Amino acid sequence: MSSVWIGSGIVAFTVSRDKLSTVNVWQVTTSTDFELGPFPDAPGYETAAKLDEEDSLAKYRERFVVHDPTLIYLDGNSLGRQPREAREIVDQVMSPEWSERLIGSWNDRWWDLQLDLGDLLAPLVGARPGEVVVSDSTSVNLYKLAGAAVRARPDRTRIITDDLNFPTDVYVLDGLARSHGLELTVVPSDQTFGPVEEILEEIDDRTALVSLSHTAYMSGYTYDMGLINAAAHDAGALTLWDLSHSAGAVPVDLEGTRTDLATGCTYKYLNGGPGSPAFLYVRESHQRSLENPIAAWWGHTSPFDMSLEFEPTDGIRRFHTGTMPILSLAAVEPGIRLALDAGIEAIRRKSVLLTSYFIEQWERHLARLGFELASPADPDRRGSHVSLRHDDGWRVTRALIEIAGVVPDFRSPDTVRFGFAPLYTSFSEIHTAVQRLERLVEQGMHETIDASRTKVT
Amino acid sequence: MSSVWIGSGIVAFTVSRDKLSTVNVWQVTTSTDFELGPFPDAPGYETAAKLDEEDSLAKYRERFVVHDPTLIYLDGNSLGRQPREAREIVDQVMSPEWSERLIGSWNDRWWDLQLDLGDLLAPLVGARPGEVVVSDSTSVNLYKLAGAAVRARPDRTRIITDDLNFPTDVYVLDGLARSHGLELTVVPSDQTFGPVEEILEEIDDRTALVSLSHTAYMSGYTYDMGLINAAAHDAGALTLWDLSHSAGAVPVDLEGTRTDLATGCTYKYLNGGPGSPAFLYVRESHQRSLENPIAAWWGHTSPFDMSLEFEPTDGIRRFHTGTMPILSLAAVEPGIRLALDAGIEAIRRKSVLLTSYFIEQWERHLARLGFELASPADPDRRGSHVSLRHDDGWRVTRALIEIAGVVPDFRSPDTVRFGFAPLYTSFSEIHTAVQRLERLVEQGMHETIDASRTKVT
Repeated sequence: MSSVWIGSGIVAFTVSRDKLSTVNVWQVTTSTDFELGPFPDAPGYETAAKLDEEDSLAKYRERFVVHDPTLIYLDGNSLGRQPREAREIVDQVMSPEWSERLIGSWNDRWWDLQLDLGDLLAPLVGARPGEVVVSDSTSVNLYKLAGAAVRARPDRTRIITDDLNFPTDVYVLDGLARSHGLELTVVPSDQTFGPVEEILEEIDDRTALVSLSHTAYMSGYTYDMGLINAAAHDAGALTLWDLSHSAGAVPVDLEGTRTDLATGCTYKYLNGGPGSPAFLYVRESHQRSLENPIAAWWGHTSPFDMSLEFEPTDGIRRFHTGTMPILSLAAVEPGIRLALDAGIEAIRRKSVLLTSYFIEQWERHLARLGFELASPADPDRRGSHVSLRHDDGWRVTRALIEIAGVVPDFRSPDTVRFGFAPLYTSFSEIHTAVQRLERLVEQGMHETIDASRTKVT
Repeated sequence: MSSVWIGSGIVAFTVSRDKLSTVNVWQVTTSTDFELGPFPDAPGYETAAKLDEEDSLAKYRERFVVHDPTLIYLDGNSLGRQPREAREIVDQVMSPEWSERLIGSWNDRWWDLQLDLGDLLAPLVGARPGEVVVSDSTSVNLYKLAGAAVRARPDRTRIITDDLNFPTDVYVLDGLARSHGLELTVVPSDQTFGPVEEILEEIDDRTALVSLSHTAYMSGYTYDMGLINAAAHDAGALTLWDLSHSAGAVPVDLEGTRTDLATGCTYKYLNGGPGSPAFLYVRESHQRSLENPIAAWWGHTSPFDMSLEFEPTDGIRRFHTGTMPILSLAAVEPGIRLALDAGIEAIRRKSVLLTSYFIEQWERHLARLGFELASPADPDRRGSHVSLRHDDGWRVTRALIEIAGVVPDFRSPDTVRFGFAPLYTSFSEIHTAVQRLERLVEQGMHETIDASRTKVT
């Protein structure tokens, strides 16, 4: 079998609008006769078929828009697919809410939407109602929460993180450390595993805050939050977790692990849409004592009294700031509902099977081609994505996208990252993707690719 | 003539969805026989008709969704109407951008969208390309810019604002002042006019920053920005202007007035949609010396190098922070284009005629009913909204909305605020609205209204 992948209509987009709306399509190679599969004779095919058959979450795939079934999308850890229901909700905001009800929609539904969505999301991360608000971007939330934490420990001089953390987290913490005259300790790792022992050793009575990514963006290493929290609390420090790469795929128990503060992304495994607002969590017992450094009207007891005196509310709204982008905010709802409906434990079970199956396939087909596993082999310490290092990782990534119809992403300098979103990824897709990748590299097709980097990798 | 206003289908909304999507409609009185007009025999009718006839911007009304032509919407200063083109752009983001192109849309179009929209918006506020970015909320932008300003003047101890400023601006400045050990001076006004002389007297060599609203949210008083900027610069201070209530309705010349920093709202006169992201401006000559306190990856020279060292870019992107909510961001485009197409000078000419005509009508019909003008009579010092104080202002506001089909808003404790968005408001609408208001209050119908406050007023 041989077929040509031209992106199923992608090249048919109109490029008739002005600059801002111009669509520059992926450079899809139309002249290749690259074989797309499926590959029933390749080892592991039947295992995949059996796992798909037994998959109780398989039915959720049809709840998402899947435009081109030959495209294998393994980047749901970066931008989740679109839940079908999102269209209805966005349409509702456009009309009647904005177009007809106009300002009246604030009282109808919009004013508390960020709190309602926070309550909806709370059980997915083990939080209680009133502890989560959907607000701003992850970076802004990190700033607010870390800023609140260091002010709550004015006699302490250290913030601790690690080098697996997402760079923006480190930038935000570093900026805060510099402006508050604190020391930021970035505990080094081996680039794959969290340096747990070293972090535990670093935590001391000068430590104000320990801030880590629950699941590391690159290797997928996943911390035992309770262990770190306990050590931090023993030393009198607070903890702030970035749940961006775990929320919606890995169970999080903010309550049970006694987490103080957390934030995370809604556009990855929660499928909230491009750049959808982040969420933040403040443990109920801290809500009255911590101070949002960006004190603003949405955190005021009575915003519409228009008083010039700032009186912060007692609840989670204190950590909210300004008016929310309602179109993007409202679109977060269906993705959360799908995850709740499927159940986070079932999602996790499938996620472990998906990543384990991929690693088996890597071992059998890819290890010999220069791909090195850059994620933990132990599923207990792994999120829902798996990274492979390859000397020519960037060109391999582009070739997968442009020739083979497989979408991973690339993280500098050499890592190809494969995300397995349990609600819409099948085991057969993984089998096919690995076969395509093996054939691509065996044939040296990645070497035909322009090596210059795109802005977003 | 007598007719019943039941909101033209508003009561027909389905309330069939779950909690988050439930629509609680305005309490529209259906049993009234309140007369809606037009009122050709009432004084001023022909003036309005003539002004409408001569209105070169009248044609722009059809570029907006006007669901119910009997509803007179005088709250475009709070949430602008929906440009018809917004639907197409939102549809494009939903599909193909999110649903089909998925992560590829970041390279296609999304990554620089906040900069492209900033450049598009720049001429409306007298800025140059590369000086504006659409980013976060006004509150977050105020925090970033004011924080950058006070750090750039580390030897100075004062921030100056006035009590006409929007409360969130004062909260943000106060929070910064407290965390940086500075003194915030809130110069008192008579609640209508900007205390210009007093501000000029306050500015001294201890002043780091002067931050004001260009057009005051309540009275509509509009500052001479050049005058304040010159005095601040003479004293070595920086200026930060909130353009939320002027951008898109009042010409702003950031370049000519030598403004240092500015932010503003896109969902009022720029018609960007509910909670659409705000914009921020940093004068080109300051972009390399000022530091964004929320240092994050979107302000990094090479975000996708994933370096743990923060290296801020030289340009306006330095003041951007995290991933933008793309649905809400993209929807900002058509409103900006409409304002550019109409031309800000033509918009201003009509705005002055609209507010002047309303004030004439107030004088003739409303002054005797206890309405007091709370905005400057001099059009040079007035924005595009006019406020009237009334002892029973809250019930008058609700009665206008619930009985008379006129939508102003209310600002505590006693102000009814009427906004006149030049692109879709006609002079005849003002004539009719004043007639409805006069009849409503003459008949004491506002006294039948429940006096309890809604969350958003």
